[in-house]
Amino acid sequence: MNQWEEVQKLDVGFQEQVANLYKNLPMELRHVLATWIESQDWETASTHEPVAVVLNSSLLTELEKQYSHHHSLLHRHMLRRIKEQLQETYKGSPLSMARDIATILSEEKRIIAMAGEMEQGSQEMCKQS
Amino acid sequence: MNQWEEVQKLDVGFQEQVANLYKNLPMELRHVLATWIESQDWETASTHEPVAVVLNSSLLTELEKQYSHHHSLLHRHMLRRIKEQLQETYKGSPLSMARDIATILSEEKRIIAMAGEMEQGSQEMCKQS
Repeated sequence: MNQWEEVQKLDVGFQEQVANLYKNLPMELRHVLATWIESQDWETASTHEPVAVVLNSSLLTELEKQYSHHHSLLHRHMLRRIKEQLQETYKGSPLSMARDIATILSEEKRIIAMAGEMEQGSQEMCKQS
Repeated sequence: MNQWEEVQKLDVGFQEQVANLYKNLPMELRHVLATWIESQDWETASTHEPVAVVLNSSLLTELEKQYSHHHSLLHRHMLRRIKEQLQETYKGSPLSMARDIATILSEEKRIIAMAGEMEQGSQEMCKQS
């Protein structure tokens, strides 16, 4: 199970915390490229522009690959909108995109861990009572 | 089959013509409220502000109803974005929204009819040859 799938299993309250992270980055991008995004080194890219440039370009290529997989009008329209939104938000600044993605991934991880700890805590309370 | 389902069955070229209509109105709104949108009188609302005001408010109510039907994070996020986008694009101007929807519906109808005529034309050419 990848991290994005773990997010889908959180309680609504935690999911809303995750939703708040998606101010600049389109959540649909996170969804359609979940595994690919999680397998890249955004931390390094956050502080190394040449790495950020490569990842930025690879991300757009991955997004374009999706066009050939999805034939529905709505899906193609959504992919086009994601691409335009990315270009508008991060034009000329691959470092900002890398930083945003790195922050989102680490915040998601923190929220998942927090949810896990709370669940464990409540299970232990149930056992004690 | 409603009109939006007919659009989904068009060839890609015609679908792209439809996609070009969605500059202001989010296509996702058209998709999630397809039947409801098609059953309202947007033509009248285009020129009668009191009707436009009622339809605008009903549309937001219909959209909110969708929240209770969809539990996925991505879907809730999308519905919230549609609502924000509508409020931003048409704030204080329900007439503009009614006009945009009326134009889109009539243009979709024109494109569907044109696609039908072309198909019929090519079938007749095949029979003659």
